[in-house]
Amino acid sequence: MISGIAWDKTTENELTQMGTAAAVATSAETHTPRRISILGATGSVGCSTLDLIGRDPERYDVVALTAHNNAEQLARVAVEHNAELAVLANPDGYEDLKSALAGTGTEAAAGPDALIEAVERSVDWTMAAITGCAGLQPTLKAVEQGTCVALANKECLVSAGDLFMKAVDRAGAQLLPVDSEHSAAYQAIDPGASTAIERILLTASGGPFRTWTAEKMASATLADALNHPTWSMGRKITIDSATLMNKGLELIEAFHLFPVEANQLDVVIHPQSILHCLVEYADGSVLAQMSSPDMRTPIAYSLAWPERMWAPTERLDLAKVGSLTFEAPDKDRFPALRLAQDAMMADNGTTTVLNAANEIAVEAFLEGRIEFARIAALVADTIDAALRDGIAKPETLADVFALDDLSRGLARSLLSDKS
Amino acid sequence: MISGIAWDKTTENELTQMGTAAAVATSAETHTPRRISILGATGSVGCSTLDLIGRDPERYDVVALTAHNNAEQLARVAVEHNAELAVLANPDGYEDLKSALAGTGTEAAAGPDALIEAVERSVDWTMAAITGCAGLQPTLKAVEQGTCVALANKECLVSAGDLFMKAVDRAGAQLLPVDSEHSAAYQAIDPGASTAIERILLTASGGPFRTWTAEKMASATLADALNHPTWSMGRKITIDSATLMNKGLELIEAFHLFPVEANQLDVVIHPQSILHCLVEYADGSVLAQMSSPDMRTPIAYSLAWPERMWAPTERLDLAKVGSLTFEAPDKDRFPALRLAQDAMMADNGTTTVLNAANEIAVEAFLEGRIEFARIAALVADTIDAALRDGIAKPETLADVFALDDLSRGLARSLLSDKS
Repeated sequence: MISGIAWDKTTENELTQMGTAAAVATSAETHTPRRISILGATGSVGCSTLDLIGRDPERYDVVALTAHNNAEQLARVAVEHNAELAVLANPDGYEDLKSALAGTGTEAAAGPDALIEAVERSVDWTMAAITGCAGLQPTLKAVEQGTCVALANKECLVSAGDLFMKAVDRAGAQLLPVDSEHSAAYQAIDPGASTAIERILLTASGGPFRTWTAEKMASATLADALNHPTWSMGRKITIDSATLMNKGLELIEAFHLFPVEANQLDVVIHPQSILHCLVEYADGSVLAQMSSPDMRTPIAYSLAWPERMWAPTERLDLAKVGSLTFEAPDKDRFPALRLAQDAMMADNGTTTVLNAANEIAVEAFLEGRIEFARIAALVADTIDAALRDGIAKPETLADVFALDDLSRGLARSLLSDKS
Repeated sequence: MISGIAWDKTTENELTQMGTAAAVATSAETHTPRRISILGATGSVGCSTLDLIGRDPERYDVVALTAHNNAEQLARVAVEHNAELAVLANPDGYEDLKSALAGTGTEAAAGPDALIEAVERSVDWTMAAITGCAGLQPTLKAVEQGTCVALANKECLVSAGDLFMKAVDRAGAQLLPVDSEHSAAYQAIDPGASTAIERILLTASGGPFRTWTAEKMASATLADALNHPTWSMGRKITIDSATLMNKGLELIEAFHLFPVEANQLDVVIHPQSILHCLVEYADGSVLAQMSSPDMRTPIAYSLAWPERMWAPTERLDLAKVGSLTFEAPDKDRFPALRLAQDAMMADNGTTTVLNAANEIAVEAFLEGRIEFARIAALVADTIDAALRDGIAKPETLADVFALDDLSRGLARSLLSDKS
């Protein structure tokens, strides 16, 4: 049925006279509190999520907060947000956590089984922000609730994409990507027209070596590689941004998240990191999402979806920014990007190998054991070795862990061969 | 209810393997043909609309095509698209039209009453592309059908916004804006989050005088003003782009179309005319629509809505474009923009006066009777004179025509006073 214009101006007028933030909050007051859990509550994404919910605590009931090791910080945020339960994945911290939470009304628990039990507590929304393969099982458990899962773990899609997305479908869960590029794509996909998408382009800042020659890059130091121009992030992801492997991994994530084929996904270099993703349609339209580089914007989007909430981020002022520039990526100088695209196209389990080998290679670079150019080379060699030995697309979580282990072993042995 | 991800990857994959255009067409084959009429079929928007429907004629049944004067062209396109009816607004051309259509199966008619009867023929979608106040009555009649109206007439919103939008609401019609900026805004408004919009920014190329000093602008020639940097358009709108009045009129249109207050609307200068509108949200996200400057993109959007169709437009290649630049508009050098914003804020009928006075002023400039700087000055003087005499916000179409006539008379008398 063709209906009238979708918004009611009169009501809007009344709301906007109070200012947008107030209007959003008022419209929110009719909601019952949302039960939420945060897996990885002491990391960067977890902290930003807590920052947002702490600004409007009436809207949320915090169920479980989990962390890996940091008992002190976990206890502090659990008390601050009145969580039902706080869980450390590492059982060694249990006594510290328990004593810190004594008499607060927040339960304490620790260890892998306690973590899974925490994830299984009934919630409306889970932030899945445990990094690495350690996030696979808890995130899958969160998905099985069939509610909203804000996804900030890369490995679920890169290493286990097919089985993860099958679990999402089976549970009828609503997956909301938290990476700025994937949140941008999600926002720029016209829900009525997903068959008419021609291309999705993720933007990349180009990292610290965008304008360097291949020769100069070959002798880049650790400090050079850690000097990211726009985002402040952890060391591993900062190196991945210098090689562009990070963008390659994001392409693989996008492949699983969005209704496109591998050859409809690509990267464009955009040094200002303001425009995060472009979705190109068959009618010539391109929809894009932009923001200042602050993770609270995509986190707020996932938290308020399908509505939007106010977030305390710097507002984008394009007249002040002046210029947004774009250039094609140089896949010769940044071979990691091509490796990731090839693995995505192959769709045969190679992405699991790529991710594992890259972790070993970046670790070796961070420890000063290999040169910058050897990172991508080691990943390529590991993939070659794995394909020679024969690999299969993982069908189960056990398959994923086995292929991940195998790949790490291959990468380590290739490392010691050459060193 | 929280549900699974909105698109079915398996189905999409099958479709996209055939290429996007084919996929879109295939999904379209399940539709029954859409009954459409085009008001203003021989103008630029009408021709682009016919270009699009002619590429996929099975999807459309062309009901009525109308034009002002051009019997020959109207007859040609009516036959080409197998229209039921062709109507000239000017009765003088009736015999020419009738003889050109003899034996073709397309009825011929002419005159204002025939035009209205044509608009009243039952359709699913109408392109309302009659320019000027002549478009008011036919467009209102189209709206009264309560189906889809693609709106390419400015005056319905600028001169008669309140009563027009009331008619849209009353009829439950679906209004789809066709101007590139308003189509962009429509595409960038998150339907679940219209209360969370903080600001809508329309982009303006800045026109031929963007970098000129006020002194140099004062002596600009007609040829200078007609030399638009990015869009190829008619003479009136090209002059409006040189004064930025065009952008001011578009702000007024946006005020009526979208769920924001006047103070939430503004303009940013973007010389490349690639990014058409920015919608800023409370979470710090900015959604934008971009395209190469080709009206077939917004027309295709309105034609296929809520789906999307393939359009034969040049695809945007940002790496090739290289740079998108933005700057704040200089409302001292471009006083027409401030006049339009003031009229929009007043919301008291002044926009009708502004539009009428601007038409007289641009006509006088095109005829070499006034200098460039006098265009905005005459509009300002006319508004002052009208406010001194006392005006009221038009409640009926007759009120609109009366205020429009009054304003033209005032502008003309101010013109002859000074010349």
